[in-house]
Amino acid sequence: MSSARLIYLPLGGAGEIGMNCYVYGYGPKGKERFILVDLGVTFPEMDGSPGVDLIMADVDWITKRVDRLDAIFITHAHEDHIGGIGHLFPRLNVPIYARTFTAHLARLKFEERGHDEMMIKTVGAYPETVEVGPFEVSFLPISHSIPESSALIIDSPAGRVLHTGDFKLDLNPGVGEAYDPELWAEVSKGGVKALVCDSTNVFSPNPGRSEADIIDATVELISNQPGMVAATTFASNIARVKTLATAGSMAGRSVVLLGRAMRKMVTAGLETGVLAEFPKTISPEEAAKLPRNQVMLLTTGSQGERRAATAQLSRGKYLGLKLKQGDTFLFSSKTIPGNEKSVSRIQNAFSEMGVDVVDDPSGLYHVSGHANRPDLAAMHAVVQPQILVPMHGEHRHLREHVKLGAEHGFEGVIAPNGTMLDLSGETAKIVEFVETGRTYLDGRVQIGALDGVVRDRIRMALNGHVTCTIIIDEDDKPLGESWCELMGLPETGISRAPLVEVLEGDVNQWLMRADRKVLRDDDKMHEAIKRILRKSGNDEIGKKPEVTIIISRLVA
Amino acid sequence: MSSARLIYLPLGGAGEIGMNCYVYGYGPKGKERFILVDLGVTFPEMDGSPGVDLIMADVDWITKRVDRLDAIFITHAHEDHIGGIGHLFPRLNVPIYARTFTAHLARLKFEERGHDEMMIKTVGAYPETVEVGPFEVSFLPISHSIPESSALIIDSPAGRVLHTGDFKLDLNPGVGEAYDPELWAEVSKGGVKALVCDSTNVFSPNPGRSEADIIDATVELISNQPGMVAATTFASNIARVKTLATAGSMAGRSVVLLGRAMRKMVTAGLETGVLAEFPKTISPEEAAKLPRNQVMLLTTGSQGERRAATAQLSRGKYLGLKLKQGDTFLFSSKTIPGNEKSVSRIQNAFSEMGVDVVDDPSGLYHVSGHANRPDLAAMHAVVQPQILVPMHGEHRHLREHVKLGAEHGFEGVIAPNGTMLDLSGETAKIVEFVETGRTYLDGRVQIGALDGVVRDRIRMALNGHVTCTIIIDEDDKPLGESWCELMGLPETGISRAPLVEVLEGDVNQWLMRADRKVLRDDDKMHEAIKRILRKSGNDEIGKKPEVTIIISRLVA
Repeated sequence: MSSARLIYLPLGGAGEIGMNCYVYGYGPKGKERFILVDLGVTFPEMDGSPGVDLIMADVDWITKRVDRLDAIFITHAHEDHIGGIGHLFPRLNVPIYARTFTAHLARLKFEERGHDEMMIKTVGAYPETVEVGPFEVSFLPISHSIPESSALIIDSPAGRVLHTGDFKLDLNPGVGEAYDPELWAEVSKGGVKALVCDSTNVFSPNPGRSEADIIDATVELISNQPGMVAATTFASNIARVKTLATAGSMAGRSVVLLGRAMRKMVTAGLETGVLAEFPKTISPEEAAKLPRNQVMLLTTGSQGERRAATAQLSRGKYLGLKLKQGDTFLFSSKTIPGNEKSVSRIQNAFSEMGVDVVDDPSGLYHVSGHANRPDLAAMHAVVQPQILVPMHGEHRHLREHVKLGAEHGFEGVIAPNGTMLDLSGETAKIVEFVETGRTYLDGRVQIGALDGVVRDRIRMALNGHVTCTIIIDEDDKPLGESWCELMGLPETGISRAPLVEVLEGDVNQWLMRADRKVLRDDDKMHEAIKRILRKSGNDEIGKKPEVTIIISRLVA
Repeated sequence: MSSARLIYLPLGGAGEIGMNCYVYGYGPKGKERFILVDLGVTFPEMDGSPGVDLIMADVDWITKRVDRLDAIFITHAHEDHIGGIGHLFPRLNVPIYARTFTAHLARLKFEERGHDEMMIKTVGAYPETVEVGPFEVSFLPISHSIPESSALIIDSPAGRVLHTGDFKLDLNPGVGEAYDPELWAEVSKGGVKALVCDSTNVFSPNPGRSEADIIDATVELISNQPGMVAATTFASNIARVKTLATAGSMAGRSVVLLGRAMRKMVTAGLETGVLAEFPKTISPEEAAKLPRNQVMLLTTGSQGERRAATAQLSRGKYLGLKLKQGDTFLFSSKTIPGNEKSVSRIQNAFSEMGVDVVDDPSGLYHVSGHANRPDLAAMHAVVQPQILVPMHGEHRHLREHVKLGAEHGFEGVIAPNGTMLDLSGETAKIVEFVETGRTYLDGRVQIGALDGVVRDRIRMALNGHVTCTIIIDEDDKPLGESWCELMGLPETGISRAPLVEVLEGDVNQWLMRADRKVLRDDDKMHEAIKRILRKSGNDEIGKKPEVTIIISRLVA
């Protein structure tokens, strides 16, 4: 089939860090068979998505072609790769392939939402292979910060693609398989058409360090503390959770896991057997009875999440445990851009309690889970791809990654979300730009990012809201006066008169003078009253409020 | 007067970084005469203060005692020290003392708001002294990133206080006076009761570098670029503006200032004579005619501000200038926590244009304007204060600064906003906790942070808003049905029926069955309908919306 092509189309994760979702397709144009790699989420912010619970890639493009979609592959169990499956599965309804630990967590998500757990298929590592449509796919182990993180070897008649997933080059990662350069050389030796590669840390100039590098310093830190020690990291950074627990145990302390996600992750690791030699943990009740210097808490909420264990401890008691003067709190994590304020709020609250906060700017107690610039170059060198396709990065990361490749002679292509590449030829060809976007999980409902719902909320947050009601009688004359109510607006403006009275007065004046023809026309009335409310608002308080106008008409 | 005491009371700036405002008082309890040091602002965020324009310290405590307030002293012209004077002056109405450059900018603010410019008094540097009430105050030059930045020597019968203002120990700061250790030793030698000291960089472990250290690297960077070079920093970081302009000029480029604040600051510097040897600048029109590699733009908006020159360039043309492939954009600034997203959005936009962004994580092209940990220790050693009072920091900074002092035998006290210290004795005594807070400039109106206005806006942003109107006739019976309008809410919930119809239906059902007694009582109706709307919302969409209910009663 000479007209067949191999396509790559990121729907999420390329041009941003988060909500990974990549389409691969093979076949004649318009008749390709597809697979999806990862189905992740990203997290909302007050800034751009207030009130939203989760953000996922808009999978509209693939749902319109769902009859040609054969499977979903999940590289690892971090939420930005797996978090969307529970919400989006009903629209896709194809088997989901993952390794044991990832599949275990996927089933928990399916259980929560009542989906058919049989659709989740457990696959072993390379050389085990899954055949779906024109593809043969294997899970190639690679080190990251969670067990069984894998790259995908995606073979099609057009050649081999290596999709790295998230990775670092760690020979001693603590949990999960170590990076095995020989294995990677072996799978690359027949020629790799495209390396689709993590770009997260392309701006980090020094080679990445191993998870094993932080254990000694962490043990020392914990040993030197006179009081209770608490430490937080992402619960899903199971490597770090284990490092911290091990360090606590080596420092002679009993370890308590605080926070649902922390317990869930460790339990999943133990149940699937991927978390060997995890120290025995004790309950909060047991911990409360021990001398403070024999206790180590591991808590969720490293990003300052309001309801997580760390934030709760910063506000007072949590499950009977309370930090105080002489205790120490370690943030063994990188603060994600946008979360700095929440994190420092918590650190200040601990400071007020007299708790020493160790925030680790020097990286003594934290290493990244992603490959740094020299590690990326090393990966390029091992794989020797014909084409380099950076992913898992903002546009500036993708661009820098292409530049890095070029420094060593690898041809790369910047393909942000929606860029469809044809990888069949010698070089990557951009063949189409597809509309992509974001789907919000908003309470229990999925809405489009551009539906206007969230835009209206942002406007109300910026401008406040005025409700104005008017009753028009059977003769198309105002019955009484207008009635306004304010929300999120100051009570008085520069005239010092109550704002609500100023607004009602201005509307009433207009009503008195308005032409009968206008009063018969809801649209014209709306338009005029809206203009008045916004202008009066602006004059009085320097803000044009959002308005809801309700005109009630009595009928004879 | 043996009962007289010397008090220190931060109203803003201690326990946060921003909106500096410190009270000093001397006299018998309840009869102290006061001065105010600095009257700054801090900037709002979508997270906690959506729609707000500026945030200032709540000066209620001092306005209640304004008959005993003698003067305001401004240490330097950064907005977090001077930004509140235009807004708060009418409530204080006392002379404002500042050095030439600061006073110049203060007058511009007064001019804008129509205040009496005669109330701004220009003072020379130490040994010049201002006598106000029981105080003698001098401006002691210190290096920072803006001209004429000064510490204050505050003498009272109870002894000498040194209030550092913002500072670094720079022997070659580019603009403003260099740090002069001999001068500081001289003013300290008679004994310093209290050192009230900047804490911003107490967590930075290495000695601070000089502004002069970055010029060579910056010249080299600019010289090596094939296209246009643009660079951004805070306009008020005049030291950096000059460094960048000088580097551009040394690299053979003509310099263009883009952005109102940038031009205003440079003009003020030139007019007051504090900005010597600033390179000649050209207009955007002239720049547009030059070859790209002969142009250097200096732009406002280093923090990603939407309307500033940097953001405008990232969206396309600005004053006829446009960046493109081959150009370079330098961020010569630290991104303030909370602004990371806005900054990276702009960097990605430049990346999409093919512009190389230099973000300088290694500090080649940026040094801080604040003293680092070893510099703070050096300052303590020179001043040898009896009491160390850390300020200009979050709680964790204040706490760490006290610890740092203790390492070298200096007794310190953590005094966040509202903590009144009596500095008269051998050690600092906390004598009172005063209620402090924040005042928002919201459009044209000042509102209290806890007035509930902003809280309501945040709630609408998180939960959306429903308006519901009901007309009750002369017989206390519903006239027709309820009418709802939604804002910021999805159109349909899990039942797939239009949400507005579900809500109206539920209210109508209740109306039909409601007791006549309830229908006569607006409060009871409000309460019941609010409960229904929030419950139905929660059932349908998993959110309890904010509600405005308007009940109109026809009268016979």
